[in-house]
Amino acid sequence: MMEKRSHCPFVFALDLIGDKWSLIILRDIILMNKKFYKDFSNSGEGISTNILADRLAKLECAKIIFKKRDSVDKKRFIYSPTEKGLDLIPMMLEMVLWSARYDKKSAISADILKLIKKDPDNFMENIKNRFR
Amino acid sequence: MMEKRSHCPFVFALDLIGDKWSLIILRDIILMNKKFYKDFSNSGEGISTNILADRLAKLECAKIIFKKRDSVDKKRFIYSPTEKGLDLIPMMLEMVLWSARYDKKSAISADILKLIKKDPDNFMENIKNRFR
Repeated sequence: MMEKRSHCPFVFALDLIGDKWSLIILRDIILMNKKFYKDFSNSGEGISTNILADRLAKLECAKIIFKKRDSVDKKRFIYSPTEKGLDLIPMMLEMVLWSARYDKKSAISADILKLIKKDPDNFMENIKNRFR
Repeated sequence: MMEKRSHCPFVFALDLIGDKWSLIILRDIILMNKKFYKDFSNSGEGISTNILADRLAKLECAKIIFKKRDSVDKKRFIYSPTEKGLDLIPMMLEMVLWSARYDKKSAISADILKLIKKDPDNFMENIKNRFR
């Protein structure tokens, strides 16, 4: 692993989010509205607890997500995206569109796909508004 | 590592390109116009030869890039993106824009940034035309 921070405008993002698990956690938080550690660990992709804890800490350190104590159940934290995290939505939607295009068995619903394609800005705003 | 192919429209892309080195190789081929194995191994990020060979094979297997023998120097191959690979440009440009926004020391030139923001479709077409 490189320790030096690259300022190549491509590698900068990769150093922060360029691994599969970080992006799966961001999908869960931003696109799937999951909030709690337990939700992420039950995501179906089988993330191990040590990787999950490591990636959550890294994403928090990079100010892409933040956590606060749940007022209902004080033993747990609620994880949310920051504005910096929400600004990853355009990239994430491009990944979704690419997958929908090239995966013949894509699980995306035709309705969602239509919504993204028809008015991507509106689709993004609706996601962002959930966190404001 | 998961062996089963996911059809989640997000994880599908991640399984194919969700690691830093695959994306650095795609940056080299698509955005930086590099063609040869030697160019990738000299990229500055310090990719090891075994990872480079592995990721090139995986990207080829996923039909994101292809190689053909160089007619000038028959000992080497020319690596190029397929249409499926070129269709990753929108996602890659969103990563560049995000990095430019959040990396205070971003190495991207103001001129390039202006070109991408002003007319992203035209910027993409110009890249694609280099490979056609």
